[in-house]
Amino acid sequence: MVFQKAPETLFWQTPARCAGSFDAFCRGRLKLIDQTLLPARLKYIECRRQEDVWDAIKKLCVRGAPAIGIAAAYGVCVGLQPLFAGGKVPPKKLFYRQLEKVTAYLATSRPTAVNLFWALDRMKECAARLKEEKAADVAAALLDEARAIHEEDRVLCRRIGAHGQKLLKKNSSVLTHCNAGGLATADYGTALGVFYAAQEAGKNIRVYADETRPLLQGARLTAWELRQHGIDVTLICDSMAAMLMRQKKIDAVVVGADRIAANGDTANKIGTYSAAVCAKAHRVPFYIAAPFSTFDLSLKDGSLIPIEQRDPEEIRRGFGRQTAPDGIKIYNPAFDVTPAELITGIITEEGVISPVNTRAIRRMFPQCRTTPRR
Amino acid sequence: MVFQKAPETLFWQTPARCAGSFDAFCRGRLKLIDQTLLPARLKYIECRRQEDVWDAIKKLCVRGAPAIGIAAAYGVCVGLQPLFAGGKVPPKKLFYRQLEKVTAYLATSRPTAVNLFWALDRMKECAARLKEEKAADVAAALLDEARAIHEEDRVLCRRIGAHGQKLLKKNSSVLTHCNAGGLATADYGTALGVFYAAQEAGKNIRVYADETRPLLQGARLTAWELRQHGIDVTLICDSMAAMLMRQKKIDAVVVGADRIAANGDTANKIGTYSAAVCAKAHRVPFYIAAPFSTFDLSLKDGSLIPIEQRDPEEIRRGFGRQTAPDGIKIYNPAFDVTPAELITGIITEEGVISPVNTRAIRRMFPQCRTTPRR
Repeated sequence: MVFQKAPETLFWQTPARCAGSFDAFCRGRLKLIDQTLLPARLKYIECRRQEDVWDAIKKLCVRGAPAIGIAAAYGVCVGLQPLFAGGKVPPKKLFYRQLEKVTAYLATSRPTAVNLFWALDRMKECAARLKEEKAADVAAALLDEARAIHEEDRVLCRRIGAHGQKLLKKNSSVLTHCNAGGLATADYGTALGVFYAAQEAGKNIRVYADETRPLLQGARLTAWELRQHGIDVTLICDSMAAMLMRQKKIDAVVVGADRIAANGDTANKIGTYSAAVCAKAHRVPFYIAAPFSTFDLSLKDGSLIPIEQRDPEEIRRGFGRQTAPDGIKIYNPAFDVTPAELITGIITEEGVISPVNTRAIRRMFPQCRTTPRR
Repeated sequence: MVFQKAPETLFWQTPARCAGSFDAFCRGRLKLIDQTLLPARLKYIECRRQEDVWDAIKKLCVRGAPAIGIAAAYGVCVGLQPLFAGGKVPPKKLFYRQLEKVTAYLATSRPTAVNLFWALDRMKECAARLKEEKAADVAAALLDEARAIHEEDRVLCRRIGAHGQKLLKKNSSVLTHCNAGGLATADYGTALGVFYAAQEAGKNIRVYADETRPLLQGARLTAWELRQHGIDVTLICDSMAAMLMRQKKIDAVVVGADRIAANGDTANKIGTYSAAVCAKAHRVPFYIAAPFSTFDLSLKDGSLIPIEQRDPEEIRRGFGRQTAPDGIKIYNPAFDVTPAELITGIITEEGVISPVNTRAIRRMFPQCRTTPRR
């Protein structure tokens, strides 16, 4: 097995002896790796207040669409905990009002990754189904729901890996951008899950990892993670990928996604579109790996996906030294949108959608809801 | 006038009272801006020994194909100075032997920019023409030759600017990569010279500058330089350019060159090829701006251009902090080659070559030599 248990990306820590879910809800803590410190330091953050969860998402201590969803689900529990402090039991009205508040608040942390809203909606729906129960029971059920979201993601990623690895030939060289790995999910990854599954199937693959400016998730996280799992990885600057494609050193591109519109247009880390354009020009297949929770079928196409603009200082003072003049204009979108026609296939837990279009996506997920989510 | 006199990129500093070229040769010093410290600090380095010149080129204190050529020409004088120390006059045989040594040594500093070899050849040819003269007179002539190369570059860049600006419409938005500006030349630039000339012609252009990983010449130098000259500049990460093209925010791409083969294939800073592929996909015209000294007509096509591989630490520990794990494989080519078919035109001091092919290039430079240079 290539994929060994690595440090957990995030988890709900409870005391050794815990009497059921309500006790775990009251006494547990959300802990997550502060990914901004990797690869130099492996350090966990404890989120004691909802503001800590919001900050951890905003500042990218936890990032990657599925992991953001899981963190937000646990974050709802964190935000409800104070109501039960010191053994208090809150009135149900207050409980539901606080639930509305905390979900609305966490939803403002990052605008693009749809898994955030999907997970918050799921938590609200869970509570709505239990309106007749006691607040303590709803709280316990919410922790169970967050744990279910967490556990389901493990399973989804392995299914994505199993479907995706079939697309890779033995001894392939693949390119990935940003980090859609164990650090971006419960533990196995979407795009990197495809590589782990291929390696487990004995395919001896080689990965080129884009460093992924400005925040270098590829250099800091993907290179670190792939190496931990013994996969042959070579780090490159984002701008080198086209040259490698021309030299026929890239057989396929596999990346994750932050939000996929109904027609397959995909928002993912800035630079993904550039990689897709270059892949098309060199006839290199380009795949997205993402679970159903990353689809937003309420949006007809990618032009409707909100794109987060981030602080110019991320580019001006990236990693220690100031590298651009003060006062210069800087454009820093966190994501771009790759149109469906550049995507060879979307690798989901149900199988590979290819060609990518509205009909093929609906066929893959017949159970999907179509009403606008927000 | 947009283009005001900025700090000189490099110059031969002489005492206030200097009695002719031989005196200037003996008592002068090569001074150049240490561009690795920009934009935080503007500091000059004094090159007292040939090793200082070699280091300055190798470590990119001076960079950009034309500026490397000028620095190498002055560097020949630096390398010959010790022969004349304390008023000595060296035997001619020793002088010419040292000339061979210093030119061969400086030629090993960087392999890709052909202007380096072009300038060193010109210095050797100058000395060869004067074999009958006294060593002191040859030395004086060599300083004059270096100054001529320096001065000619000023003129060439202005002519490139004048030809190139005609290609840009009023209120255009242009993209550039790396730094082909005043800092890469005598003082005006090739690609940036086109922008300065357009601005001087009242065209109100707007420039997007790729930051240019790994060494961020776009962020550190181009953004700094364009702003000094009052041009509207916005800094982006290299991977964002494709998205801007899709949004129709880029009307043209103009970049410099380090070496151009006989058929027009062009080596330039890594990432140029990626920008060219994206430009083609979005039907954005893609121009190279470079003087004749950047052409290497001894090479049939770009596959023969040697590509410098640089230290992986430039990517691992870019600017202060370690951003990739120790021991990870890193690929760090300094340049890539853009094939002629992706280049809309090459802007030279004699005019614009378009379409770009072997015949059109020969027609533009009928005086060119065709024998291999090295």
